[in-house]
Amino acid sequence: MTDKGISLAVIKRLPRYYRYLGELLENDVVRISSKELSEKMQVTASQIRQDLNNFGGFGQQGYGYNVEYLYTEIGKILGLDRKYNIIIIGAGNLGQALANYTDFERRGFKIKAIFDINPRLIGLSIRGIEVRMMDELEEYVKKEEVHIAVLTIPKTKAPKVAQDLVSWGIKAIWNFAPVDLNLPKEIKVENVHLAESLMRLSYDLKTMQENEENQETGL
Amino acid sequence: MTDKGISLAVIKRLPRYYRYLGELLENDVVRISSKELSEKMQVTASQIRQDLNNFGGFGQQGYGYNVEYLYTEIGKILGLDRKYNIIIIGAGNLGQALANYTDFERRGFKIKAIFDINPRLIGLSIRGIEVRMMDELEEYVKKEEVHIAVLTIPKTKAPKVAQDLVSWGIKAIWNFAPVDLNLPKEIKVENVHLAESLMRLSYDLKTMQENEENQETGL
Repeated sequence: MTDKGISLAVIKRLPRYYRYLGELLENDVVRISSKELSEKMQVTASQIRQDLNNFGGFGQQGYGYNVEYLYTEIGKILGLDRKYNIIIIGAGNLGQALANYTDFERRGFKIKAIFDINPRLIGLSIRGIEVRMMDELEEYVKKEEVHIAVLTIPKTKAPKVAQDLVSWGIKAIWNFAPVDLNLPKEIKVENVHLAESLMRLSYDLKTMQENEENQETGL
Repeated sequence: MTDKGISLAVIKRLPRYYRYLGELLENDVVRISSKELSEKMQVTASQIRQDLNNFGGFGQQGYGYNVEYLYTEIGKILGLDRKYNIIIIGAGNLGQALANYTDFERRGFKIKAIFDINPRLIGLSIRGIEVRMMDELEEYVKKEEVHIAVLTIPKTKAPKVAQDLVSWGIKAIWNFAPVDLNLPKEIKVENVHLAESLMRLSYDLKTMQENEENQETGL
């Protein structure tokens, strides 16, 4: 089954479905109706049915959806039935935090190596993975099979490091630096812009405060 | 100037504008046309003009936009001219990583306290802020002015802690736990679901790999 032509909006919703189904599975729920799932996920039952119809429906009239089957199928669509080798560039707090997320490994994302320029971090062991020096990076990437490089380095360094990684064969980058990497279209980049996320919250807070102020002044 | 009725899509784009304008400002650029900005941001010039027209235009025909003015105005819209007190719940790697982001403070987000249940972390000093025990949390929130609580705790703990925080007066939560908090609508929640972000990347990688496999088999 290919999933060509599925809208990006639907694809973006899949990880959330996957997360909810995983919880249902952990709680030994065998089947669920679109109505029950919609109540849990705060999404309309019709949206759920429409979304899942893109992938062959899965459900059966009167039965609902088999949780394990749906979980597995969505997992395949998300590529989670495959294994991915990940390297982390930047062994500061954020890099170490990501290295310690055991959740990733459960889903097939194995952190194979961590790199840094700081000599004091070299040799530090994070969940059994030793921090290596940046000058070992090129050889490592060319020799080993690396699917995803995670950038947890300063924004001044990230674009150049990303370019190098791509020139050595990396096809996918998970970027935490607050800068656009400007890589060729075929390189898959997922940006996590933490400051932008926080700014959305400040916008919401400010709107809330302004509404309160307007109410007080009787506007 | 109120910004009622501005579409959510536009609001979501503002932090990115803010980031680019900040860089232009750092590089001493005084003014920029929508065309130049569009080339930088890989967004159409007409989208830029449309977006900014929601906020009074700012630009002048033939002049373009004054970078500093635009940066400041968008900053105000995003609430960045205000100061926000932030507390971090969970002093593990991720909590410490966020506490160390000096970028947040530059934008008016001041981390005032960090809390944890692990006795071994109590008293640890992160950029001058001491880790406190969770049982001090209620008194702290009720006594001090806290705008945003950041949750970097396990998903099993997050919903209850979030409920408690809200009952003590917190209005905004930045949530890193991979779970929906199910809080009242008026509480502003910004979720950073790292596993979902990584899943989008695996979906892209898988699509790329499938395309390559299809080419090889001549499909």
